Amino acid sequence: MFAEIITIGDELLIGQVVDTNSAFIGKELNKIGVSVYQITSVQDNKQHILSALKEAAKRVDVVLITGGLGPTKDDITKHTLCEYFNDTLVQNDEVLLHVKELFKRYSDNPISDINKQQALVLSKATVLHNIKGTAPGMWIKDTNTVFVSMPGVPFEMRYLITEEVVPRIIREFNRPHIIHKTFVTYGIGESALAELIGQWEDKLPGNLNLAYLPSLGSVRLRLSGKSEHKEELEDVIKVESAKLLQIIGDLIYGEEGEDNLEVVVARLLTEKSKTLATAESFTGGKIAEMLTSKPGASQYFKGSVVSYATEVKINVLNVPEKIIKEYSVVSEQVAMAMAKNVQKLLKTDFAISTTGNAGPTKGDSDADVGTVFIGIATPTKIFAIKEQLGGQRERIVNRSVNRALELLYKEILES
Amino acid sequence: MFAEIITIGDELLIGQVVDTNSAFIGKELNKIGVSVYQITSVQDNKQHILSALKEAAKRVDVVLITGGLGPTKDDITKHTLCEYFNDTLVQNDEVLLHVKELFKRYSDNPISDINKQQALVLSKATVLHNIKGTAPGMWIKDTNTVFVSMPGVPFEMRYLITEEVVPRIIREFNRPHIIHKTFVTYGIGESALAELIGQWEDKLPGNLNLAYLPSLGSVRLRLSGKSEHKEELEDVIKVESAKLLQIIGDLIYGEEGEDNLEVVVARLLTEKSKTLATAESFTGGKIAEMLTSKPGASQYFKGSVVSYATEVKINVLNVPEKIIKEYSVVSEQVAMAMAKNVQKLLKTDFAISTTGNAGPTKGDSDADVGTVFIGIATPTKIFAIKEQLGGQRERIVNRSVNRALELLYKEILES
Repeated sequence: MFAEIITIGDELLIGQVVDTNSAFIGKELNKIGVSVYQITSVQDNKQHILSALKEAAKRVDVVLITGGLGPTKDDITKHTLCEYFNDTLVQNDEVLLHVKELFKRYSDNPISDINKQQALVLSKATVLHNIKGTAPGMWIKDTNTVFVSMPGVPFEMRYLITEEVVPRIIREFNRPHIIHKTFVTYGIGESALAELIGQWEDKLPGNLNLAYLPSLGSVRLRLSGKSEHKEELEDVIKVESAKLLQIIGDLIYGEEGEDNLEVVVARLLTEKSKTLATAESFTGGKIAEMLTSKPGASQYFKGSVVSYATEVKINVLNVPEKIIKEYSVVSEQVAMAMAKNVQKLLKTDFAISTTGNAGPTKGDSDADVGTVFIGIATPTKIFAIKEQLGGQRERIVNRSVNRALELLYKEILES
Repeated sequence: MFAEIITIGDELLIGQVVDTNSAFIGKELNKIGVSVYQITSVQDNKQHILSALKEAAKRVDVVLITGGLGPTKDDITKHTLCEYFNDTLVQNDEVLLHVKELFKRYSDNPISDINKQQALVLSKATVLHNIKGTAPGMWIKDTNTVFVSMPGVPFEMRYLITEEVVPRIIREFNRPHIIHKTFVTYGIGESALAELIGQWEDKLPGNLNLAYLPSLGSVRLRLSGKSEHKEELEDVIKVESAKLLQIIGDLIYGEEGEDNLEVVVARLLTEKSKTLATAESFTGGKIAEMLTSKPGASQYFKGSVVSYATEVKINVLNVPEKIIKEYSVVSEQVAMAMAKNVQKLLKTDFAISTTGNAGPTKGDSDADVGTVFIGIATPTKIFAIKEQLGGQRERIVNRSVNRALELLYKEILES
């Protein structure tokens, strides 16, 4: 079965907001065997929304709509849906009570007419109760298609997808099984990889396909399959995965579904009961932030000294001024001292350090833009590597973070 | 004039990758007066791409396509474009030379046939030279519509948009002027704001419109206008902005186009030649990372102690163990000690601290999930506030970061 996602809002089209809702919905639907056929982002414009709804209804079984449900004048989704379904808005008492309760937390005044309007829903709709906000979701059955309207606020939308929409789709639709298996490779480019595994790829069964997802410093290979029969599909994925591993097993460092490098590192440290600290200069705390954004980080992550200014490297991390003067602040020696000293200061088993110039101009050092050093301290050794990276600031930071985690991963594995 | 963005790739539809390309393109086009009518994300499927191209050509003047230009078998955009335009692929010698040079950096071997194919382009296309990668962009003029094909790798696409596509659109199309002005408000909800400014909003001239963009802890108001006459438009935006400021001037903390809170704080610190440090617990370095992700951070940002583990608060930040035992690690007292001590340790004018529980389970303290303290140290005072936040980990962290920057902003302004 197929779904289409329609995200509504001028802010998406002028690039003020990145549409993260679609990726979330795509991922959740994919887990239950629903293929997203298309994602369409449209303006807050009635005619445009109407034509997007009409086109989507021709293509798919379920249309998931986000946005335009706020209480203000630019929010027109509800009125547009009324026109599309030739329906009227009616007050839902349960929603009204909920809206009143939400506002009572902030004020003793009675709620305004604008907020009362949040309780208006299409008469044909099944209300999806939104405990996270004032705009309810709506599930509307048309002749051949179900339309679901949800607020665009990400955490409200996520609640409705997880608690209301996905369970309903599971109950009301027959869906094939979909399996994706993603292999994360490192140290090899997309085209070289393609040549190594080309013969295997050509012989894949018809219901499987392979995608190459190059990202900073690594290429992910995603093997996807679809079938009515779950066990058969699992078997064929297993057989083909084994063949792939025979060809490029040494280039693969992670195998599971959605695992990024930071998740793999986190799991490995937790399993081995080892701890980590970081001393970050140009990466500005990005490694710490990535690791702590996932629950459970306190099991292995003790902290970081973000030593953006040179004096912090000296005063907090105790990097000898002599080394900085002799080799420059962007150097192998400083990277090693930072890793060693943060490991000692925070009493951890492993440590990562970064020092470099991410641009756009030269900073405290003479290093060229894109010159970075990554230091690693393990229980038995300390070393640093140099990278000369191209591209803009964000890319230099991201590649360095990936490279640092990759280096650390290998060290933990071997320790 | 109107544009449509078509992003191609299964990874977008299964939610493995968030489509950040569209927001970048939307923002750049918007600056030069091109309205993005729709964003469409489609699968790596020939029939689907063909129908998306056909539909888009009916709607807009320029169709910008990203993705599917890699050297591997799942990349089918070039062949699909050939079918759409009834064209053939021809080798472009300049591109071939460039591809060869790129590979020479990594290997002495001659390049493979797979990589040579990167130099094949549609015979009808004007080649947009991509110095950042192997896949060239293509500019293809059809009867009433221009199609532009670009790689999906973000930094390659960004280079082509900035250096090739935007200059060409400026040369070849007449475009109206578009102005957006965004006001960032704080401390008031969307509906209360709507009531305050409703009368003003109702009387806005026809070529202006207003959007409410609620995000964590603040609501942005975006006033947009479109006109053939730039100066007339500037005047009317100026007049209406002044009226708005008269009504809610005290609720607005930022006024410029794309400025987020961190940009406003960074500018203010730089202007006043003041410095900042952070001591972050549950935010894990997020504040440091946000600030240093923008160029120029070294002007005011010295660093951060990410004290995720309690022992790092004691050993590195010198928070007295007694205070932690008496008040718990998630407390006003600890937040204040963290802010004060990082200010002293890193010798800065201002400091921010965070301690709290972002969940999903209780950590080192007895604090409920969502209980957070934010500490602020200025040259003249130290204080901390408590917030009880709902929602998931990511939301708790993001709201806290916003709140911390908001508090800091007010203090810098008043200092």
